[in-house]
Amino acid sequence: MTHQESLSLSTTGHGAMNDLTALVQQAVGRSKINAGIAHVFAVGSTAAIGVIEFEPGLRKDLPETLDRLMPPSRAYGHEQTWHDGNGHSHLQATMLGPSLSVPVTGGKLVLGTWQQIFHLECDIHPRDRTIVITIHGD
Amino acid sequence: MTHQESLSLSTTGHGAMNDLTALVQQAVGRSKINAGIAHVFAVGSTAAIGVIEFEPGLRKDLPETLDRLMPPSRAYGHEQTWHDGNGHSHLQATMLGPSLSVPVTGGKLVLGTWQQIFHLECDIHPRDRTIVITIHGD
Amino acid sequence: MTHQESLSLSTTGHGAMNDLTALVQQAVGRSKINAGIAHVFAVGSTAAIGVIEFEPGLRKDLPETLDRLMPPSRAYGHEQTWHDGNGHSHLQATMLGPSLSVPVTGGKLVLGTWQQIFHLECDIHPRDRTIVITIHGD
Repeated sequence: MTHQESLSLSTTGHGAMNDLTALVQQAVGRSKINAGIAHVFAVGSTAAIGVIEFEPGLRKDLPETLDRLMPPSRAYGHEQTWHDGNGHSHLQATMLGPSLSVPVTGGKLVLGTWQQIFHLECDIHPRDRTIVITIHGD
Repeated sequence: MTHQESLSLSTTGHGAMNDLTALVQQAVGRSKINAGIAHVFAVGSTAAIGVIEFEPGLRKDLPETLDRLMPPSRAYGHEQTWHDGNGHSHLQATMLGPSLSVPVTGGKLVLGTWQQIFHLECDIHPRDRTIVITIHGD
Repeated sequence: MTHQESLSLSTTGHGAMNDLTALVQQAVGRSKINAGIAHVFAVGSTAAIGVIEFEPGLRKDLPETLDRLMPPSRAYGHEQTWHDGNGHSHLQATMLGPSLSVPVTGGKLVLGTWQQIFHLECDIHPRDRTIVITIHGD
């Protein structure tokens, strides 16, 4: 059995994190799937999906860490071609990855108490985003 | 067809790596699934799952590399709120990711000869961990 | 429904990126699956799969960024045992990850306009690679 839906998200720009856990759980509920996997995918090349303890400290630490490891710079080949100021956004999104799969048991996402599903905006402007949720199972 | 089971793992603390390959292969065998995907998920926000050549050199190199890129520090926002000393553990686990999917063909995991499935403890203390294995296929 | 196939790829060595998007889409077409997930997996411990805007600038920026964060070095434990010069290749491949899952809707991969599926060679020599594509869905 496969259930699929998409959701829209408006972000406030670089480093904005949104907690998707409740939205993904609602999709799992609508799917009527009891045991399987929920897959969450960010459409676009400058956003990422992952898990984190979704609290204010880490919501600041994760984007800051990414900016330290892959800082904004005009030296990127991407900048020299496109001059759009978001070379680091692409690199950060690629390193973190656009997708996540979480097990579903008894109709619920299996996550730790302090483990939430996030969307991270890596681009430098606010963006309207599409996220696709696909649930497989019995 | 979906098969799901979970396993428990006691870790020795920060940087401890465990080879899960044989345990995941055993679950694939019990599933009787011939062709599909095996998904491995670490429950909790301070551990990670991935693939690596599981040999003593890299078992030292991977945690050291993570500690170099995301070092322990009291400067993290997470530390300033929670004072639990594991801000870097969260960041390392998020960057590496909690899950992995490996193809199954002929009832076997498809992996390279030097490609093993690992669990990495990122937290600073020994922990009792739960890992969920879900296998989809025919 | 599960459809699985593998493809071969000859790479030119460290930092070589190949765009797999059309090949994965062709496999989705052959699968006759309308809605589900396409999973792409790199067999071997020194290559990675991900998404990126596949343009010449970023094809240079991503390998350069990985070499900056995880540089070639004789100091790795892996080198001290094996002396094969590719400790950084293993670390880069593990950090980026060997697999990717992309949703399929209406028989097509759901990707942004500037979001392509890539294979990255992290090893230091040209290699012959196997990539396994598995599609689940209805």
